[in-house]
Amino acid sequence: MEYVYFFGAGEADGSEDLKEVLGGKGANLAEMTNLGIPVPAGFTISAEVCQYYYKHDETYPESLDEEVEENLKRLEEVNGKEFGDPEDPLLLSVRSGAAVSMPGMMDTVLNVGLNEETLKGVIEKTDNPRFGWDSYRRLIQMYGEVVKGIEAREFDLALEDIKEEKGAANDTDLTVDDLKEVVDKFKEIYEENLGEKFPTEPRDQLWGAIDAVFGSWNNPRAIKYRNISDLPHDALGTAVNIQTMVFGNTGENSATGVAFTRNPSTGENERYGEYLKNAQGEDVVAGVRTPKDIKELQEEMPDAWDELEEIFQTLEEHYKDVQDVEFTVEHSDLYMLQTRTGKRTAKAAVKIAVDMAEEGLIDEETAVGRVDPETLDQLLHPSFDESADKQVLAKGLNASPGAAVGEVVFTASEAVDRRENGEKVILVRTETSPEDIDGLEAAEGVLTSRGGMTSHAAVVARGMGKPAVAGCGAIDIDYEGEAFTVDGKEVEAGDYISIDGTTGEVMLGQVPTVEPKMDENFQKLMEWADEVRQLGVRTNADTPEDAKRAREFGAEGIGLTRTEHMFFGDERLSYIRQTIMAESKEKREEHLAELAKFQKSDFLGILSEMEGLPVIIRLLDPPLHEFLPDTQDEVEEFASRTGRDAEEVQSKINELKEFNPMLGHRGCRLGITMPEIYEMQVEAIIRAAVELNKDGVDVRPKIMVPLVGSPEEMKRVKDSAQAVIDDLLESLDSDLYYEIGTMIEIPRACVLADEIAAEAEFFSFGTNDLTQMTFGFSRDDAGKFLDEYLEKGILEKNPFETLDSRGVATFMEMAVERGKGANEGLEVGICGEQGGDPESIHTAKRVGVDYVSASPFRVPIARLAAAQAELED
Amino acid sequence: MEYVYFFGAGEADGSEDLKEVLGGKGANLAEMTNLGIPVPAGFTISAEVCQYYYKHDETYPESLDEEVEENLKRLEEVNGKEFGDPEDPLLLSVRSGAAVSMPGMMDTVLNVGLNEETLKGVIEKTDNPRFGWDSYRRLIQMYGEVVKGIEAREFDLALEDIKEEKGAANDTDLTVDDLKEVVDKFKEIYEENLGEKFPTEPRDQLWGAIDAVFGSWNNPRAIKYRNISDLPHDALGTAVNIQTMVFGNTGENSATGVAFTRNPSTGENERYGEYLKNAQGEDVVAGVRTPKDIKELQEEMPDAWDELEEIFQTLEEHYKDVQDVEFTVEHSDLYMLQTRTGKRTAKAAVKIAVDMAEEGLIDEETAVGRVDPETLDQLLHPSFDESADKQVLAKGLNASPGAAVGEVVFTASEAVDRRENGEKVILVRTETSPEDIDGLEAAEGVLTSRGGMTSHAAVVARGMGKPAVAGCGAIDIDYEGEAFTVDGKEVEAGDYISIDGTTGEVMLGQVPTVEPKMDENFQKLMEWADEVRQLGVRTNADTPEDAKRAREFGAEGIGLTRTEHMFFGDERLSYIRQTIMAESKEKREEHLAELAKFQKSDFLGILSEMEGLPVIIRLLDPPLHEFLPDTQDEVEEFASRTGRDAEEVQSKINELKEFNPMLGHRGCRLGITMPEIYEMQVEAIIRAAVELNKDGVDVRPKIMVPLVGSPEEMKRVKDSAQAVIDDLLESLDSDLYYEIGTMIEIPRACVLADEIAAEAEFFSFGTNDLTQMTFGFSRDDAGKFLDEYLEKGILEKNPFETLDSRGVATFMEMAVERGKGANEGLEVGICGEQGGDPESIHTAKRVGVDYVSASPFRVPIARLAAAQAELED
Repeated sequence: MEYVYFFGAGEADGSEDLKEVLGGKGANLAEMTNLGIPVPAGFTISAEVCQYYYKHDETYPESLDEEVEENLKRLEEVNGKEFGDPEDPLLLSVRSGAAVSMPGMMDTVLNVGLNEETLKGVIEKTDNPRFGWDSYRRLIQMYGEVVKGIEAREFDLALEDIKEEKGAANDTDLTVDDLKEVVDKFKEIYEENLGEKFPTEPRDQLWGAIDAVFGSWNNPRAIKYRNISDLPHDALGTAVNIQTMVFGNTGENSATGVAFTRNPSTGENERYGEYLKNAQGEDVVAGVRTPKDIKELQEEMPDAWDELEEIFQTLEEHYKDVQDVEFTVEHSDLYMLQTRTGKRTAKAAVKIAVDMAEEGLIDEETAVGRVDPETLDQLLHPSFDESADKQVLAKGLNASPGAAVGEVVFTASEAVDRRENGEKVILVRTETSPEDIDGLEAAEGVLTSRGGMTSHAAVVARGMGKPAVAGCGAIDIDYEGEAFTVDGKEVEAGDYISIDGTTGEVMLGQVPTVEPKMDENFQKLMEWADEVRQLGVRTNADTPEDAKRAREFGAEGIGLTRTEHMFFGDERLSYIRQTIMAESKEKREEHLAELAKFQKSDFLGILSEMEGLPVIIRLLDPPLHEFLPDTQDEVEEFASRTGRDAEEVQSKINELKEFNPMLGHRGCRLGITMPEIYEMQVEAIIRAAVELNKDGVDVRPKIMVPLVGSPEEMKRVKDSAQAVIDDLLESLDSDLYYEIGTMIEIPRACVLADEIAAEAEFFSFGTNDLTQMTFGFSRDDAGKFLDEYLEKGILEKNPFETLDSRGVATFMEMAVERGKGANEGLEVGICGEQGGDPESIHTAKRVGVDYVSASPFRVPIARLAAAQAELED
Repeated sequence: MEYVYFFGAGEADGSEDLKEVLGGKGANLAEMTNLGIPVPAGFTISAEVCQYYYKHDETYPESLDEEVEENLKRLEEVNGKEFGDPEDPLLLSVRSGAAVSMPGMMDTVLNVGLNEETLKGVIEKTDNPRFGWDSYRRLIQMYGEVVKGIEAREFDLALEDIKEEKGAANDTDLTVDDLKEVVDKFKEIYEENLGEKFPTEPRDQLWGAIDAVFGSWNNPRAIKYRNISDLPHDALGTAVNIQTMVFGNTGENSATGVAFTRNPSTGENERYGEYLKNAQGEDVVAGVRTPKDIKELQEEMPDAWDELEEIFQTLEEHYKDVQDVEFTVEHSDLYMLQTRTGKRTAKAAVKIAVDMAEEGLIDEETAVGRVDPETLDQLLHPSFDESADKQVLAKGLNASPGAAVGEVVFTASEAVDRRENGEKVILVRTETSPEDIDGLEAAEGVLTSRGGMTSHAAVVARGMGKPAVAGCGAIDIDYEGEAFTVDGKEVEAGDYISIDGTTGEVMLGQVPTVEPKMDENFQKLMEWADEVRQLGVRTNADTPEDAKRAREFGAEGIGLTRTEHMFFGDERLSYIRQTIMAESKEKREEHLAELAKFQKSDFLGILSEMEGLPVIIRLLDPPLHEFLPDTQDEVEEFASRTGRDAEEVQSKINELKEFNPMLGHRGCRLGITMPEIYEMQVEAIIRAAVELNKDGVDVRPKIMVPLVGSPEEMKRVKDSAQAVIDDLLESLDSDLYYEIGTMIEIPRACVLADEIAAEAEFFSFGTNDLTQMTFGFSRDDAGKFLDEYLEKGILEKNPFETLDSRGVATFMEMAVERGKGANEGLEVGICGEQGGDPESIHTAKRVGVDYVSASPFRVPIARLAAAQAELED
């Protein structure tokens, strides 16, 4: 077994392919060496040693010591220097490097090998005592901190004290004698903290650092990170990279820097980064001095620049992606210390992917795979001008992305009124309910003090593509006083606030915003994605405006129109309430007839926006009590307006109350026990469709029955709808195309999918409810324990955001298999909230659905994710 | 194709085996003929004709006419009489007879073939004009009623009028002339109703009756019956039996009767039945005259009696079961008209099965299969003395069987107080909640005005084996006035009422009751059942008393002890409330320590009652808010007693409130977020077990974690319990045997059963919750549509009473397969309400569980059902 991999002098034992063994850093150092790029020689102790270490009671394989010695010797030979040689010592850096970068693990110890003896050699050899002492104090600090766990602050304060005492503004202002004082002080700190002297033996330093790297694999932060990221603890492990030191701090012909091969913020094909002359790497990052723009290097060190340019070319051509590198110039010689794939903004990701494909560096499919769909969200909503000043009042959950500015209002009706006067408002509520729907629609955005990512406000806002900050516990709303307070500060109705649904920030005043652009690159990438993907992408839209927007974003139809949202709004609400309260069938039908007019006009709008594309309209889903008045005042108002007795109204409300409304009298259960409502809806759909059809509009309505758990339910509702439709089409003399299908959202429906499919032309998974019932979680209540579940790793993801691939997906697979087995032509989609989530789209693909349906703003995300799911396949 | 089967003159074309074709009646007539029993000859038109009839637009197969004619000829030959012969006519009966007896179908037409001509022949031949005219008027009435649908009342009233006019008390008092008048009047009625004359042509009468039988297969009542009984409409069909008339009304040497070969009420091996001399069969049933006890026949007609005795022997030996027969004596000749398996009471069923096995007529396994387990319920509860007078006030749902008598109380605390004074009370509430548990325990029975078969009151009462009448909407409770009214009648607190949970009746006063006996026969049958069954039977018991009773009834351990019931009761409730309200961890632990004392003593009692048998104890399941005060008064009382602010208490209550508590923060979710409670419970269980163990009691505690949906939940709770147990056993120096397992009640747990099984030593299906989530039905709310679903045939059974064999069972099968696949030693049971339901036990057997757990009173039912499930296998 070989545990140690050498790299240097133009060749390496390892390569990029050995990432699992060498870690990302080690593999890339080997790869760069093989590419002929100047990399300081070194060797990597493989991650297998880390696994061995934890399997064997924190001991090393027997051969390790010898292998390290051999490689150290080889390193000495390559460098022509010996480790610990008092004349001209080889100095080393020790760095961790796992296959997946992992916060919390030990990072870097530089200048390993320095002690009072070797320091003399270094000073003599470099004729630079300042450099020598500076390097030495850095070693003591880093070793003390990262290997031994002494708080950085102790060293920093000591250094600051001395600088102050000496009147030195920068570290570079300290004299050699000052630095000697620093070294003494640092040694003192070390000894005080650990009760032992700083180790002077170079090999002790080296093994101390190695031990620290392996030991850090199981420190609490690393464990927590792996828990959160769902990485295994016992596989993997970290490698250790031991590398010849090169110095950017040997004088004015030395420098150190970090750079990207392209601009990671805009995606422009230009070098991007910064460097510091006469500095070690940590100085750039730590901001001790202000670094310079990498472009200045061209003037300051033209040779190094040219070489760097050439290396950038080589790296991009080799890695086919933007690289994020570290480099050091030592006495005018350029060394590369690290390369890795560069992180970038969504905007940059799109541009880089498209540019590289057009440059021929990658193909279009690769470009499609290069952009994280989730990040597109940033590009699809207005955002706050980053350069603007902002006074952040509080921070809540980033429940629905985007930027919104408006005057504070506290009631939905106020929002509607103000909107009608052309004003922009932010609706602020402890939480919202279906009755606030008009207000939500009227507002620019919504801010709630309670509720989570899946609260009513959050879900509806995301559906509308409207910014929302939810669960902002710091604000305390006083409805009566028409104000809210944050930390004693009062914000009144009418005051301007700005909310950032992307970050969760709530700001005072009007922060300027920037409009989103679906630019050329974005469009191009979407087209390529469409070429790749097999999975259809539709949208969930309840209004013609949403339908239009979604179509612009590429939706191929509507996967879900929720008709109940159409029942809210003052006038409509009154009719549905009267329908519920009706004393007789006649009265009920009278009120329903009024509702039918509204419904028909809703459907006219949506169907015509989606001309040529399928539109799935779900029949009424929620329980009736959701429509009834909430408060005593509302009860009385409704009673007096409709000539009823308030007590009678209240008694009806009580009668309809449910212990678990989620599992109650709703969906097709209502359609079966009170068939008039569904009949009205079906009639409105068909009348609207026929009207458009006669005007030459190609309409494709699909009627969807919610909450089916038994084939007998589906058959009953279908038969009754069919009867209505047959009558209508005959009387209207039309032969409209339409379909009748069902939601699959009850676990039992998955088992009986074959029998249900015999009665249905399509299935659409209601993954929200299916998740609720599969887990036995109420979405409205789960907040009380879900966060803790996620934190403790009991669940990896919130199943209401990301489809549960173990449980819910198994039921879906069962339903697809049985459903399509029984009805070959059965179309199957997903219309739950998770339909717009990239990981869920991968699951959807695996499960075998034909399309996903996402909220309008998530349609592009879904298109890209669907393409990537295909590519992964 | 042969459509017609002849029987007569000692041999028959058909036999018992052809029940599907000949119907039950026809097959038994053929069988009796083959057995040499005197049966009037006849022929059966097979049920296949019925199927043909409906498949071919209500027409008959071409050959039918000819076949009927041939068989009629054969019948004429056997009888030496011709159909329609004016001298000595053959008269026929026409009866329907499906394989499954089916109410609503046409029943019987007698005397077919009579008209003014043939009547003369009959009179001449019998020299009995009275008999002739009586038979004729019967034909007209029956033909009018059952073939033509004229209301029976019309004929009855006309007959009554004439009897009054003639001063006749009985039909037999009418003279021949009177009867002629009746015939004229009946013909008139016939003509008025149908606009046509009564058919005089014998073959018209015959075919009219045949048509009517086949036509009645699809009448609304028959369709409804098949819907309810889940019988197919297009298979099956009814047969038609056409048989030579024999007459019990030809004089004093004639008679007609019905009899059982054994007493169907007590099971005694004695003849049982009644007869009438000089009468036709319908007279016995209609109660026109009071019939005589069959035993009197021995004196009155000794020859007929002897022959009947012999036939009874033959029938029992042949059919191996009690027979219910119809017979007629015509001029001293005995004829058997029908035999079928006799229906019997539960008591009789048990005695007959055991007797017959001991007589060697059947084997023990057959005896086990002979008793309907569901009917045992009658034998296991006190019942009202059937001979007592009772004044029924109202009728509700028969929610929990048994008879209870007591004074009316309206609150649980009143019930407890009165009980302590040695008084017997009936708790009367609109509905009950967990806080009423003490009151339910104290009361003899419970009566609620709301709630269904699965309401809190019903479920708890069944669990306690206490009578309950639920959902008795007719009673109107006035809590303030301490009274309820029924139809204007007021019943006050303190008044005696009697409730019959077996029938749902509510009676005024103290109706005398009869205690149940588990007699010798019952015991014997149970022993035989135990020898047959593989499925274990345990009980759901929360108290030592329940455990003891269940053990007496044969429970082999406890499948479910609900620990939350133990938290109710004044003192305990206060501690759990204070635990919930605790300001600090210390305070919480302090209150929990108090609860632990109660819990330990609970467990001591239950574990010692179940010595040597497993006892599964479920950790806390319901959400915390169930324990908090309900009303403003209670809030204030609690606040002042514990030195808290009422507002603070209310705010905690509000905080814990849930939209869907069923899907909320409960079960292991609570155990994970607030581990102290489970730790306390585990400690109490183990301490109790160790204490008993040290006293030499063989205890087998099994700790059950509720509501697991993810293996990670199970692992976490198990690890934490394990840690508590390890510590305890070490400190107590014990090596107690115990197990840790889980409920399977979340659909997701069924999918992940393999992973969960790796962490669990046993599974117990919580079929209540599993049903709720699989269907998406809230048990508390489903009443609003479930009844309608059952009525409309959308569901065949209430899935909370009978395990859903299509959906829920599929998930269970999945869980058993995966669970046992991953953990061979995994024990799997059912502890939901359905565990005591016979049909559900069959499903359980199919699904592959190891045992079922039923409420104490249903343990014998479960034992028998389990044996039958095995036999069926």
